Amino acid sequence: MKSAILKTGAVAVTALLASSPAFAAPAADAAAEVAADAVSGGTAYIFNTLLFLIGGFLVMWMAAGFAMLEAGLVRAKNTSTQCLKNIGLYSIAGLMFWIIGYNIAYPGFAEGSSGLFGMAGTAYGMQGVGEADLETGYSVASDWFFQMVFCATTASIVSGTLAERIKIVPFFIFVTVLTGVIYPVVVSWEWGGGYLDSAWGFSDFAGSTLVHSTGGWAALVGAIILGARLGRYTDGKVNVFPGTNIPLATLGTFILWLGWFGFNGASQLAMGTVGDVSDVSKIFVNTNMAACGGVVIAIILTQLRYKKADVTMAMNGALAGLVSITAEPLAPTVGQSILIGMIGGAIVVFTVPLLDKFKIDDVVGAIPVHLFAGIWGTLIVAWTGDATFMGQLVGVLLTAVWVSVASAIVWFILKATMGLRPSAEIETAGLDVHETGVEAYPDLARQA
Amino acid sequence: MKSAILKTGAVAVTALLASSPAFAAPAADAAAEVAADAVSGGTAYIFNTLLFLIGGFLVMWMAAGFAMLEAGLVRAKNTSTQCLKNIGLYSIAGLMFWIIGYNIAYPGFAEGSSGLFGMAGTAYGMQGVGEADLETGYSVASDWFFQMVFCATTASIVSGTLAERIKIVPFFIFVTVLTGVIYPVVVSWEWGGGYLDSAWGFSDFAGSTLVHSTGGWAALVGAIILGARLGRYTDGKVNVFPGTNIPLATLGTFILWLGWFGFNGASQLAMGTVGDVSDVSKIFVNTNMAACGGVVIAIILTQLRYKKADVTMAMNGALAGLVSITAEPLAPTVGQSILIGMIGGAIVVFTVPLLDKFKIDDVVGAIPVHLFAGIWGTLIVAWTGDATFMGQLVGVLLTAVWVSVASAIVWFILKATMGLRPSAEIETAGLDVHETGVEAYPDLARQA
Amino acid sequence: MKSAILKTGAVAVTALLASSPAFAAPAADAAAEVAADAVSGGTAYIFNTLLFLIGGFLVMWMAAGFAMLEAGLVRAKNTSTQCLKNIGLYSIAGLMFWIIGYNIAYPGFAEGSSGLFGMAGTAYGMQGVGEADLETGYSVASDWFFQMVFCATTASIVSGTLAERIKIVPFFIFVTVLTGVIYPVVVSWEWGGGYLDSAWGFSDFAGSTLVHSTGGWAALVGAIILGARLGRYTDGKVNVFPGTNIPLATLGTFILWLGWFGFNGASQLAMGTVGDVSDVSKIFVNTNMAACGGVVIAIILTQLRYKKADVTMAMNGALAGLVSITAEPLAPTVGQSILIGMIGGAIVVFTVPLLDKFKIDDVVGAIPVHLFAGIWGTLIVAWTGDATFMGQLVGVLLTAVWVSVASAIVWFILKATMGLRPSAEIETAGLDVHETGVEAYPDLARQA
Repeated sequence: MKSAILKTGAVAVTALLASSPAFAAPAADAAAEVAADAVSGGTAYIFNTLLFLIGGFLVMWMAAGFAMLEAGLVRAKNTSTQCLKNIGLYSIAGLMFWIIGYNIAYPGFAEGSSGLFGMAGTAYGMQGVGEADLETGYSVASDWFFQMVFCATTASIVSGTLAERIKIVPFFIFVTVLTGVIYPVVVSWEWGGGYLDSAWGFSDFAGSTLVHSTGGWAALVGAIILGARLGRYTDGKVNVFPGTNIPLATLGTFILWLGWFGFNGASQLAMGTVGDVSDVSKIFVNTNMAACGGVVIAIILTQLRYKKADVTMAMNGALAGLVSITAEPLAPTVGQSILIGMIGGAIVVFTVPLLDKFKIDDVVGAIPVHLFAGIWGTLIVAWTGDATFMGQLVGVLLTAVWVSVASAIVWFILKATMGLRPSAEIETAGLDVHETGVEAYPDLARQA
Repeated sequence: MKSAILKTGAVAVTALLASSPAFAAPAADAAAEVAADAVSGGTAYIFNTLLFLIGGFLVMWMAAGFAMLEAGLVRAKNTSTQCLKNIGLYSIAGLMFWIIGYNIAYPGFAEGSSGLFGMAGTAYGMQGVGEADLETGYSVASDWFFQMVFCATTASIVSGTLAERIKIVPFFIFVTVLTGVIYPVVVSWEWGGGYLDSAWGFSDFAGSTLVHSTGGWAALVGAIILGARLGRYTDGKVNVFPGTNIPLATLGTFILWLGWFGFNGASQLAMGTVGDVSDVSKIFVNTNMAACGGVVIAIILTQLRYKKADVTMAMNGALAGLVSITAEPLAPTVGQSILIGMIGGAIVVFTVPLLDKFKIDDVVGAIPVHLFAGIWGTLIVAWTGDATFMGQLVGVLLTAVWVSVASAIVWFILKATMGLRPSAEIETAGLDVHETGVEAYPDLARQA
Repeated sequence: MKSAILKTGAVAVTALLASSPAFAAPAADAAAEVAADAVSGGTAYIFNTLLFLIGGFLVMWMAAGFAMLEAGLVRAKNTSTQCLKNIGLYSIAGLMFWIIGYNIAYPGFAEGSSGLFGMAGTAYGMQGVGEADLETGYSVASDWFFQMVFCATTASIVSGTLAERIKIVPFFIFVTVLTGVIYPVVVSWEWGGGYLDSAWGFSDFAGSTLVHSTGGWAALVGAIILGARLGRYTDGKVNVFPGTNIPLATLGTFILWLGWFGFNGASQLAMGTVGDVSDVSKIFVNTNMAACGGVVIAIILTQLRYKKADVTMAMNGALAGLVSITAEPLAPTVGQSILIGMIGGAIVVFTVPLLDKFKIDDVVGAIPVHLFAGIWGTLIVAWTGDATFMGQLVGVLLTAVWVSVASAIVWFILKATMGLRPSAEIETAGLDVHETGVEAYPDLARQA
């Protein structure tokens, strides 16, 4: 359960004081060991809030990472459109999570507010200038910001898979539903204290399933309904459409890696005690090392298999390692983290070609990275963390069913009404000229 | 008034203690509610300083954002020059703000020092190793760093508008005067506790006017004196010179968005109390949501008007939303923030074509974004914040007159002496080869 | 000596308490001045740990900076390979520093553990969930993360110099030895409390010698053994191979600049007292100003010498300024810092052409920037800091001998066994197609 407000709730003040020996007996002859970890209540509040703020801006930065990764991996003629989709989806996520998403995700939080749409007007909504949320032990606004950027991340995953062949307007409408309803419902089951959390002890620390698999299922269903890019699979052959700008994709990978320290680290939800900040530190190390493991295994496997160390596989290896460790980045040892990341990286190397066999066209490899590695990371918590294999499996399956069905309905409605794809002429010419009217590299791109 | 030193000043120690119930009566039977927000004096000092450091490095990072935005929006043949200008202007701003700027901006701070040039040698200048500035409640060095990066931001705004047609040397000389004198004088009137602050109650939390409009006026006057790029306006037609690298401009937009959390958030100037850190959190949310609003409105308006969702307008919509909320990012509700950002975004969509009518050639749209949205953001504080419309208007106008006149004088002197523009041959060939001697994309750019 | 564990060690608890007047006598009538700097033990622990975490993610981000700088400065046909090398070297550094490097670097730390390979299993290794390392005064995991990213930085330096002509596999094997053994041995002499620290009072605050010169020597020896790129020096002429993507290199420079605030600032190793956080602030200012000085001098010198303000020299001027101040970023005044950075920048302007005279082919100028400016920065500590010229010289020379000899042995073994360079055909065609199988700019790059 991730919601800090539910975790701490009404007992926050007591808890803060209890964890502050200095306040329990500041003038007493407390043992040195006890005094050494003393943190006052207000100080803990500031640290907790600061963790959300730092984590929040790091995860916000991941929006740039996805944008660069995707802009680098699509063809020149679709690059501006991909940039627009990434700027737009983050903004839509912000508005939708404010209007409705947060209250769906954290129903306990909305109590006393005016129903689903209450965040804008609830007593908990946003405190007045100079005031603080002492009952929660951190600023609610900082938590909201942190939760919002997770919502945006989910949408980013979808945009990569469906690149180069979906029109802007239906894509943005899907994002509106995904960030306003589909994702928040999944969150409510677990971090919001709902069914998966209470009935199954499902454990998903920072969102291998809630964020990454949710985005992955929505992308997979979308890819199947949308179909492959024109000319991608012809006469039983797979035609490779290489990305335009590999250094940009590299940059995107590094941005995502950096942002993940906020994604996983700040999901500790508190650093106002010596134990919490030490846990955040361990999460940093494990997160980093899982990514290192994913990279190294991807390089080794592609070198062995193809005699070439594939740079795009190395990138996806890093991301798969990160997704894999996200369900439980705290409990594993460093060795376990490396192993979990390595297996995540190996999954990507083997499943990217597999998708092509089924003619599922995933432009950036988001389905192997976010969905397959996300499932792997979630299930392995039964080994490293405090969860059962059955509980984890139920969480994976329930998310799969809900997100797939809900997404499919939205995709089909969009397809039946406004249509999802541009005409074959536009797709062949590239979406940029028709959809956004701005060429990405007018001085550089080769004439056709 | 923004200077933390003036805000806290000599009463800092008392204030810190007063806000620290634990110190007022650490062993007493303080009520739980009181103890829950206790922060000791030294802890508050560290938090305040840390806010300046984090905010400072985020705003420093905006220098990269402007560089990428501008490099992406100029033509390939002028890209290296634009990169050089951005690296250079940040460095000049650093030196000038140290030599003279800071003392002009904060005259109260320089008291007891050796006049205008005293920062390098004042008692307040920089404390010794291991010492602290207990009388201010934060490290003066951290505050200086935070103020310096604001100074650099102002210069960044100018470089975008004047791109592709100004020689490097006169540009750098202008930047020297702008960062050493013109900008610091504006700051002195408000954040330095001067005329606008004391006589008019002018309110500009993080610099919609002081930073963004100042840069915008200097850019506007420069654009008029410099004239348009060759071939931009011919036979009553506006010829579009599309930018070379849209994903790079997208990256720049995301960098600026990220940096703005430091720009606005750390302008709270303190996070050593539970109230301050909660305010910083609210600023994060409002800043983010104003940008989201600016993006969404720009996408909707361009889609409706041109049947294409213009990606460069979406970028400028984000930036306009950010500039609009900068004058007062704390007091508005989230709904108000979204609305303020949306109107800022709409202003950009409607005024970018307007400038072309007057044949004012603004390469990246910096005048609509930083000047027009900056004025809008400043005036609307009369609605959301603690200021009068008249006071805000006076601040806008006084800044307009000072910056325009001072800039015009410098531009005219430079034009009369060394000249501002390269020859028509050089401009047509691109500034890169002649001015910096380095082509930006030698392996990629199309042969003419 | 940099190891926080050695610096604080067993007296940490006492020290924390001693520095916390509030705990020594919380209820007593302590003078206001004393109380104003009070920080409790647990709070100091959190601050110290947070410094490592923030510094750590900023230095991790430098890996992206090196990647972008190098990707921008190589030719299009070798860009993907350069990206792969940078992703891979960071990952290898992570694994090697975990497996063996850290224990070599900090032997005192490994006491009680199972020898060199003990980090994975030592009592100090990683504490349990929710536990803290009260005996050290910070989370050991956070320190480990911070040290690991320094190790990766050292390897990054090598990859730039040797670009465009070294095969991927021998490069990665060299990185494995460099990050696992060569670099950690140098660290052990100084930050690990060894010979240079105890016998010579050698002073290297954040690593002008330990990190930058170590990388520089390994690069220099590698460049000599590897030889120049084909066609670089022909008939007594130096043929310039211009970089493909100047804005990307600009981005890399800004990323490195940003990361350096973590590199130098967090090398204070503590911010749990008002004095420490004030010192971190001073380091931020000095670091920033040395870079500004390096840029401005590089622009002035190239403008005077070549009548063109060279943008790549401005970048290297920034980096040289940063490297120069790294050996002692705290003690100098701001004026001294600017001067140190300026001389560093001037060194680069004059030594880049010098290397070409000796036909040493350094693709990105890493040897002037990291080695020459690193030596300069180390020696000048005798003026600004607490060290003797002789002690600094011994540190420089000892590092030179060890790193050069060890690197040469590894390079020669690799050359003799698997070979270092691809065939002339492959080098001429570009390494990308053969080594990683992925073209960097397939839609953009000019046909040969």
